[in-house]
Amino acid sequence: MRYEESVCEGRNPVIEAFRSGRSVDRVFILDGCSDGPIRTIIREAKKSGAIVNYVKKERLDAMSESGRHQGVIAYVAAYNYADVQEILDAAKAKNEPPFIIILDGIEDPHNLGAIIRTANLAGAHGVIIPKHNASGLTATVAKASAGAVNYTPVAKVTNISNTIKELKDNGMWFVCADAGGELMYRLNLTGPIGLVIGNEGRGVSRLVSENCDFTASIPMNGDIDSLNASVAAGVLAYEIVRQRLGS
Amino acid sequence: MRYEESVCEGRNPVIEAFRSGRSVDRVFILDGCSDGPIRTIIREAKKSGAIVNYVKKERLDAMSESGRHQGVIAYVAAYNYADVQEILDAAKAKNEPPFIIILDGIEDPHNLGAIIRTANLAGAHGVIIPKHNASGLTATVAKASAGAVNYTPVAKVTNISNTIKELKDNGMWFVCADAGGELMYRLNLTGPIGLVIGNEGRGVSRLVSENCDFTASIPMNGDIDSLNASVAAGVLAYEIVRQRLGS
Repeated sequence: MRYEESVCEGRNPVIEAFRSGRSVDRVFILDGCSDGPIRTIIREAKKSGAIVNYVKKERLDAMSESGRHQGVIAYVAAYNYADVQEILDAAKAKNEPPFIIILDGIEDPHNLGAIIRTANLAGAHGVIIPKHNASGLTATVAKASAGAVNYTPVAKVTNISNTIKELKDNGMWFVCADAGGELMYRLNLTGPIGLVIGNEGRGVSRLVSENCDFTASIPMNGDIDSLNASVAAGVLAYEIVRQRLGS
Repeated sequence: MRYEESVCEGRNPVIEAFRSGRSVDRVFILDGCSDGPIRTIIREAKKSGAIVNYVKKERLDAMSESGRHQGVIAYVAAYNYADVQEILDAAKAKNEPPFIIILDGIEDPHNLGAIIRTANLAGAHGVIIPKHNASGLTATVAKASAGAVNYTPVAKVTNISNTIKELKDNGMWFVCADAGGELMYRLNLTGPIGLVIGNEGRGVSRLVSENCDFTASIPMNGDIDSLNASVAAGVLAYEIVRQRLGS
């Protein structure tokens, strides 16, 4: 399992867990406790949807690993990121040309989860996300992925452009999704391929798109600008699947 | 524009608007007012994400259409549903064989919005949703559709199976999405077609699938069960687009 839970004890560590955006699943609070920091924790729990349980001192003492719970214990989700080599190894182990989905700044955790779910079912060997200005793996992402986070490796890199350059040196081709590109049916998307999906609002950043070999577009027959990012990722990923199947 | 806003005035009408699940966009409350019903309204507004503004009596009086605002005025979203004939007429006007997306119980408003967005860009002439046990058009759906609700007609019907039967009498074919079906590339999806997408958890209901001519499946190479409903709708809708383009 790539998903684990860690225990977080004490007022400041629990407040810190909430404020740093880590996904707190459940909070156990000493019955009758209602001072300032505890009220802050309850407020943060409500905001993030964490479940709050009020328990007796004996129960908290029994749960505590450090013995210094100060009236509050939280269970925080922890995800294990893969590294890029692990993704390449997964392709090798299956004797398939690598198929990686690279996300250039997806911010919505529901989109990230849906894309990891798509990656799993489309047979992609992994997903690469950036360290900054993007959704990381959280409980919402895990839920939206329908469990796919437990199977499909997700790597987090500092610089998407550099990672693409390194993978190109390894013989991979990169196609980025953009409305201005070549119609996806006209491109050869077989072989070792990285599919680059941009941010929900801004699309693929200039530097990243300049490092891609092709730009693919989905046919658009409507009145609005663009598909939802996870739908676009699905349509393009399955065009790759279709071409690989020779259908 | 299919999307309009209506004004709702007075404590009970505003509370009623929240409780009946209508999408309240903004609430204007008389500054200093904090009795029970007003507190209920503020609580409901917080729950649903409606914006609350506190204003002076003169402003409320000026906004009021009925002159009986009782200290609260809300702006409520109102959507105009199309009827099925309107969708068929849209296809006729474009001189295209009808292409309709039928949703058999999509519950998540983000999925519904994303599917209306996909319908618009894939060139579908409309979307049909059921009256009961499904998401209707709300502010969340409108937002997730990226404005597509203003262009793509959405019809609401009492019985999806009966609507399919009637449309079949009009010469349409129906394909439903299900993992147990024929691989979508092997089916002929050109011509006048209805694409049926099932509920997020339960899939297409038995009665509805029995009324369909084909069952189409998306190739699945992974460890988990199914794609996100809006991604599956996108992949299948674009398989129809590809076959219509002859690519």
